[in-house]
Order: sequence, then C-alpha cells, then structure tokens
Amino acid sequence: MSKAIAITMGDPAGVGPEICLRALDSPEVAAHCVPAVFGDAAVLRRCAVQLGWRLAAPVVSVGEFASMDRRQAVVVDVPGLELSAFRPGKADANTGAAGYAFVLAAIDAAVSGQVAAVVTAPLHKVALRQAGVEWPGHTEMFAHRTGAKRWCMMQYSAELACAFVTTHVGYAEVPRLITARRVLAVIRLASEGMARLRRRNPKIAVCGLNPHAGEGGLFGRGEEDRLILPAVEAAQREGLEVEGPLPPDTAFLPSRRKAVDAVVCMYHDQGHIPVKALAFDSAVNITLGLPMVRTSVDHGTALDIAWQGKASPSSLFHALRLAGRLAGQTVPPKPGNLHQK
Amino acid sequence: MSKAIAITMGDPAGVGPEICLRALDSPEVAAHCVPAVFGDAAVLRRCAVQLGWRLAAPVVSVGEFASMDRRQAVVVDVPGLELSAFRPGKADANTGAAGYAFVLAAIDAAVSGQVAAVVTAPLHKVALRQAGVEWPGHTEMFAHRTGAKRWCMMQYSAELACAFVTTHVGYAEVPRLITARRVLAVIRLASEGMARLRRRNPKIAVCGLNPHAGEGGLFGRGEEDRLILPAVEAAQREGLEVEGPLPPDTAFLPSRRKAVDAVVCMYHDQGHIPVKALAFDSAVNITLGLPMVRTSVDHGTALDIAWQGKASPSSLFHALRLAGRLAGQTVPPKPGNLHQK
Repeated sequence: MSKAIAITMGDPAGVGPEICLRALDSPEVAAHCVPAVFGDAAVLRRCAVQLGWRLAAPVVSVGEFASMDRRQAVVVDVPGLELSAFRPGKADANTGAAGYAFVLAAIDAAVSGQVAAVVTAPLHKVALRQAGVEWPGHTEMFAHRTGAKRWCMMQYSAELACAFVTTHVGYAEVPRLITARRVLAVIRLASEGMARLRRRNPKIAVCGLNPHAGEGGLFGRGEEDRLILPAVEAAQREGLEVEGPLPPDTAFLPSRRKAVDAVVCMYHDQGHIPVKALAFDSAVNITLGLPMVRTSVDHGTALDIAWQGKASPSSLFHALRLAGRLAGQTVPPKPGNLHQK
Repeated sequence: MSKAIAITMGDPAGVGPEICLRALDSPEVAAHCVPAVFGDAAVLRRCAVQLGWRLAAPVVSVGEFASMDRRQAVVVDVPGLELSAFRPGKADANTGAAGYAFVLAAIDAAVSGQVAAVVTAPLHKVALRQAGVEWPGHTEMFAHRTGAKRWCMMQYSAELACAFVTTHVGYAEVPRLITARRVLAVIRLASEGMARLRRRNPKIAVCGLNPHAGEGGLFGRGEEDRLILPAVEAAQREGLEVEGPLPPDTAFLPSRRKAVDAVVCMYHDQGHIPVKALAFDSAVNITLGLPMVRTSVDHGTALDIAWQGKASPSSLFHALRLAGRLAGQTVPPKPGNLHQK
C-alpha cells in the first residue's frame, strides 16, 4: 500500500515554493515517496515561471485529493493569498496566514489517513504573529491541532540526535518550564523514536541545565538534583537505557556521540548548537509524540535569497527520506512517473 | 631573553601531578619553553614513585626561584599538604587549599616578572569550596589577585575560539549579568587577544542570548536589542570588525567558523558545547585582560583515573604552547637540557 507524503509549501515569500518545485521534479524523491505539495498553486506557478522551471505535477483541490488514489505527485491547492499584494522576499500578515493554512490542511489530510507523513517547509515566525497565529512554530500547531498530550521536538542527524524539553521560548523562561514530569516524557519519546529509527533498544543521555550539570550544587538552583535526576531514575525503573544529568559541554564529545543514540536537551540552543555545528546540512526536525509522522526542513525562510533558485533542496530531501523511514513506507520508482525527465 | 612558564600542579588528588611530571620530562615541552612546576614537591615525588617515573628536575623554594636565572626546568616547592591524611583520587578541603596555594604563588611569580606566563592544571571546585576558597574557578582567582578590572575567559582552538560574557554561574543567573558594558568589554578583549594570536585585524561574531537571537522580539525579554546590539554598535564605532547578535545555533556553522576569528558567547555552555564537540582534545582556556598571560588545560581533575599514569598530557602541552605564543617567547631547544633523555 503506497501512501503520499504531504509537503507544506511554507511561507510563500520564502524559499518554500522553489524547494517544493524541486521535490516535485526530483527522480531522487520519486524513488522513495509520492510527494503531495500543500500550497497555493498560483504561487507555485508564478515561482516556476519566474525561475524558468516547470510545474509538471497536476493541481487538485483538497476535496479531490481526499478521494483520489494518491499514486502520483500532485499539488493540493490551498488558495487564499492575494497575489496583487504579494512580493517574493517580503513576508507579512498575508503570507503568514497563507503558510498557516497550508499546514492545517496537511495536518487534516494526515489525521484522516490520506498521507503517511507531513514534511514542512519553513514558515516565518514574525509573519505568523502578524497574521494573528498564536503558535510560535510548526510543532505547537501540530500538537494543538491533533490534541497530542505529550510531544517534543527532535533534531535528528546520523551524527547526533537531540530531543528537547523546551524549545521556542526565551532563555529566561526555561527554568520554570523544566519539571521532572516533562523531562521523563521527553526521555520516553526520545527512546520510542530512536527505537523506531534504529530498530534497537536505544541509549539516551540527558543533559543538565547548569554549567558542569551544577557541579555538585555549586552552580544553579539544584535543577539537576530536584528535577532531572528523578526523571532519569524513573525512566531507568521503566527499563529504559538512560544516563544523566551530564555536564552539557561534555555530552557532545565525539566519544559520547558514538556511545548514545540521542541526547535529551533542556533548551533550544543546548542541542541546536551542536547539531548545526556538526551536521549543518543534514539535520532534520522531527516532532515526536504526534498521531502522525512529521518532519521538517532545518532552515528558515531565507527571504534574502528567496525566489532566485539558489536555495538547496537537500534539507527537504533529507526530511522526506526520514519521514518515509519513520512511516515505514517505501515506494519503488515507477517508470514513466511524472517527475522523471 | 628566555623566561620560564609557571605550571600550577592543580589539585594534588587529581591528574595534575602526573601531567606535570610528563611536562618536566618532555623534549617537546623543553623545545619551546622552560617549565617551572608550582606545587608540592613531596606529592610530586610520591606520584613519580607510585608510577615508576622519574622526577629529574631540581626542587627549589619560592625564594630561590625568585633569585635564580630560571633557564632550566624546576619544581618550585609550595609545601603545606598533610601527606598522612592525603589519598590520591580523593579531593577534600586539604587538597583544595593546597591547589589554591600553588595558584597564588604562581600568580605572584608572574606579577613580579619571574615567569612569562602561567599555565594551570585542574582544581576541584567542591574541594575549593570545602577549603573556604570563595572563587569558583581559576579565572576569578587571577582577576582578584591581580586586581584586573576587565577580563574574560576564552576557549581557544584552531577550529573555534569563544570568549565569554559569563562563565561559572547557574543558568538562571545569566540574564541579570549581561550588560552592554560587559558585552563591549568582552568584544574588545576578544579582539585584542585574537589580534595577538593571529597577527591581523580579527573578525568577531557576537551571539544573541535567546533562540534565533530573539527572532525580532518573539522570544526573550529583548536582551538582544537592549543589551547586545548597543555593544556591537559601540565596538563598530571604535573600528572593530564585529557583527551580531547572531542566532546562537547558526553562529557555529562550518562556514561561519571559517569567516570569523572568535565568537563572543553570553554563557558557559553556549561556547563550551561547540568547542568541546569540535575540538575536544585541543581546546585551551585563556584568561584575557590580565596583566600576565594565563592559559589552562581543558579538562578536570579526573579523580577516577588520577595517579594511574593514564591521563593524557596533550591538553597541558597545547596550553603551554599557546601560552608561549601569547607571551611572544620562543626558547630554542638546548642540547644537554635536563629534559632530554
């Protein structure tokens, strides 16, 4: 049974449209999945014309997509952007609202089983806020729309995978968001996710919050002993292979990266800094704990180079491949497929 | 004019004594500097006996060292540890106090011009506190003892150099310690330090505090706009080549590491995580802004392997070499030198 993978087009003003055009036209992508781009078809066509590229995939409505057999790449049209006021490279309330609508349509398609996974192109956080969207990022949109009770972000690469206790909040907000319950939930999610990806009982390391993991109470407010250690011990009692809290700056040493499958991080930059330093062009963002598979590109809207054909689609391709692995889906390449030149 | 470099022996219970014995007996070290180990000679002798190594360097008192010509490797004896109560691998108030005394003696030797630089072996922070020492680390001891008004820690490796606005404080204490004045001071120190090391006008990048550097005010309390940006602009007005605040997770991408000489980090793990992930065995800790050159090994006391001869001296050797470069001193190897077998 072959199922499509939804790709949301991202903010229309960013690099999303052009990398979606690449995915629709890539033999590499066609070899392992059936892409369905959820976006504004008029924007995609305009982007293709501007770049001199082709848009060979047929355009269908959300309703048509729900009832078709979904064996070939398509664009699922989610119209609504006022094209006369739209300028590539300029994200605003209109592009933010459009990008949000693509995500909602793709989530609904996944919830009703039309697609096996959702892969998201970048949104623009300021544009989203201008559009009145209350969620700071995709992860929160998915969690809210699906009613997921426990979920977390993971940044995955072959070199290093990090799961996050907190993500898109200010530095100073982090300590009050760390609870033993939340740390335990993220340990469990990371362990489940890595078990699926690596087909073995995974080893999980958990970082402390403070320098040197508090160094025996010298730094910090005892967050390691009060909040993190109890979660680690509870996970161990459940039979999970987990250690910590580790000094954050030694958790990512080469020897440690080889010894564990994933690192649970307390805040965004604790894990994003080493992932991007070590695997800058191959990291994929996964949301763990949702009722569907969801991965994402690991870059932003890149407004400064948008609609110029310069943006690399490799992060999107990595995200598609990982989504396929997580969904357990492999579609053999079909000769004569639309995407093959 | 050749000058010695002081090496403090570190906490006696840790790996400091054995790596000091290695430095005293290394042709590699002798080729570019004259080491003077400030430590407890009785402890060093006991360590040498236990490991079956030799201690060939003569032992002198602090007074003798002050008046000698300092052209050969020596141990500068700073006695005081009660050997009957001392156990290798067990740091306590006594070893903490001894390790602290070695540092004070070495600082004084540097202030009076007897040594060109001080390189420090690791102290044990809990032992220091048990000994009633109020400073959390070497950097603060040096700053206080020399009356330095503005100083900062730098982690240096060929791959990545980071200077720190804050270091050994709890995660939650960081935001109130960031001021535009402090950020500007660290930018200046990083720029001066890298100019000395790389003999060119260096490029400095400055990280934000929040994820995505606040992403236009979405995350955080405006620390980037209120505190960091004004410091960057002030430094630019002084003619320094500086940019920022950058999103912390993109500041350490391979392309950015090549483009800048040093990164100014807001907190300990923001810089220590990427330095250790990328240059785990070659990073050297430098204190910038002191009236003398000071570098340090990049590892702890490693009590679990102390006095077993397993500890690698390579970080100490890196620190000695960098101290020599910063002090602008190169001593050609001398045939017949004590350290040559």
